[in-house]
Amino acid sequence: MVVPNITLKPSGQKVAQVGFGLWKVPNDSTSDVVYNAIKTGYRHFDGACDYGNEKEAGEGIRRAIKDGLVKREDIFVTTKLWATFHSPEHVEQAAKKQLGDWGLEYFDLYLIHFPLPLQYVDPAERYPPGWSIAADKWETKTANIPLATTWKAMESLVDAGLVKNIGLCNCQGGLLLDLLRSARIPPAMLQIEHHPYLVQPQLLDLCKDLGIAVTAYSSFGPLSYRDLQTPKALGTALLFENDVITSTAKKHRKSPAQILLKWAVQRGVIVIPKSADTKRQTENMDVFSFDLSSEELSAISSLDKGLRFNDPVSVTCGIVIVSGALEIG
Amino acid sequence: MVVPNITLKPSGQKVAQVGFGLWKVPNDSTSDVVYNAIKTGYRHFDGACDYGNEKEAGEGIRRAIKDGLVKREDIFVTTKLWATFHSPEHVEQAAKKQLGDWGLEYFDLYLIHFPLPLQYVDPAERYPPGWSIAADKWETKTANIPLATTWKAMESLVDAGLVKNIGLCNCQGGLLLDLLRSARIPPAMLQIEHHPYLVQPQLLDLCKDLGIAVTAYSSFGPLSYRDLQTPKALGTALLFENDVITSTAKKHRKSPAQILLKWAVQRGVIVIPKSADTKRQTENMDVFSFDLSSEELSAISSLDKGLRFNDPVSVTCGIVIVSGALEIG
Repeated sequence: MVVPNITLKPSGQKVAQVGFGLWKVPNDSTSDVVYNAIKTGYRHFDGACDYGNEKEAGEGIRRAIKDGLVKREDIFVTTKLWATFHSPEHVEQAAKKQLGDWGLEYFDLYLIHFPLPLQYVDPAERYPPGWSIAADKWETKTANIPLATTWKAMESLVDAGLVKNIGLCNCQGGLLLDLLRSARIPPAMLQIEHHPYLVQPQLLDLCKDLGIAVTAYSSFGPLSYRDLQTPKALGTALLFENDVITSTAKKHRKSPAQILLKWAVQRGVIVIPKSADTKRQTENMDVFSFDLSSEELSAISSLDKGLRFNDPVSVTCGIVIVSGALEIG
Repeated sequence: MVVPNITLKPSGQKVAQVGFGLWKVPNDSTSDVVYNAIKTGYRHFDGACDYGNEKEAGEGIRRAIKDGLVKREDIFVTTKLWATFHSPEHVEQAAKKQLGDWGLEYFDLYLIHFPLPLQYVDPAERYPPGWSIAADKWETKTANIPLATTWKAMESLVDAGLVKNIGLCNCQGGLLLDLLRSARIPPAMLQIEHHPYLVQPQLLDLCKDLGIAVTAYSSFGPLSYRDLQTPKALGTALLFENDVITSTAKKHRKSPAQILLKWAVQRGVIVIPKSADTKRQTENMDVFSFDLSSEELSAISSLDKGLRFNDPVSVTCGIVIVSGALEIG
């Protein structure tokens, strides 16, 4: 199955428009899931320090390379800098530790996971560090490290050949534009929550104008957040059961998942669904054999509620910033 | 009529929760409108370089002081740094020119109007400079000046005693948080578009947690944008005609305008309506003699559409950023 590529600026490197997301893939199955996804045809994997499964994901990739399924250069590996490592001296330390965990020489894309720097946690003490200052304490301390300072250290990773491209996650337009005012290497990618309940047309237009590729996470909306038991996710109807989605799926003889992915892909967005099931993995890649009409795209976009499920600066999501500290609870 | 005050951090200065907004007040009537508003009881005026009526607003205030209606220290004057003056060497130049125009020794609050720096325009050449590079050309060039750089120059204005408080307009949470990471003097105020079609509960919560006061502009929603003929404003039902607003108004025997202002005020927000009509001016201040119930507040908040009428980085509003330049059209 052929998945089209998106070309990244400023490196010119290509990335498959359907990748495989590693959030919440359990450690004991990650290696096999990744190996099998490569077999299925996935060439783009999206990980993070915070997902806690980088070693296992790396194992899967290295096994596939060893078995001759792919070469390193066939695979596009994205991972993310965690919020406790935003200080310039920690950025390279974190990237090198993560490269060691994956067993790779370089990452294709390294993203700042959240524009919300937290106080440093020594990896020897707790890893991945997560949001809280201690495993048993719902309290988080922010760090006063401007994004531009962290970005300079990200640029140095490119200079050092440790990463090919750099980017950001979870940024709004104003912050993105402000970063560009001091960036030497502009971000190649913005990764954001994106689904028909959170359509963000202006942010997408802005990224298009700026030449920044966009990756969508949580393409299925509330689904990913149901098992986290957030009130917002529990109180929102599933997109898989939404009439507009199910009727469009029926019409095209595709699954609701495929419709949701296709809607994103036709908007020019890269998607990173996950599934442990080979049939579903194939299905998620199979979104290039049909097209949604502009009326169908509009009908899906009009489901927009401005509903963000992953928002650390949000009471609803359970985390509030209190006088310079993030308080979770 | 007594209007309660909001206390600003970090100065401790107080500002009346209902002020008078000077956007679109015509030059030939501004002086009288301001003078009469002071007579009516207004003690807080919100101007801007971009409104083009600072001289006339200053005339009105100085006349009121001369006639013994008020003392300078009774009046809270806000004005704004235009986008062409974000470079540190232009910030003080702009503030001093504006002080000269108003005929005042200091401003109570000086705000960065948009976090979208534009290339410098010499005031001798065109003033106010507006968005375009020339009066007859719909094209705008951005300038690569990070917000933190402009903010340092804003802090120097406080040090020099030219302004008492500094703040921002039109910023989202991410940019606000990032600025705080390098600010020596934190912003006292964020001024944002805020009405029942653009409720922004998370941004309000964030500002509350950070101790930043919030001023709402366009409290009546699309109304202010109707005469600008923006498609978004023309295509959106007026809040004055909305059933929730009109029925609440009827119940309290108040005008829809008073309900909209009261809803904002009960959310802790400062409002800056304008009117040339003395009766309406009085009405707009008269929002402290009744209270909306929490059910009424919720019903009004539930009109939220995430609809922003004043968004320079927006196709709908007619302005798009193209490769580092703002293109309007």
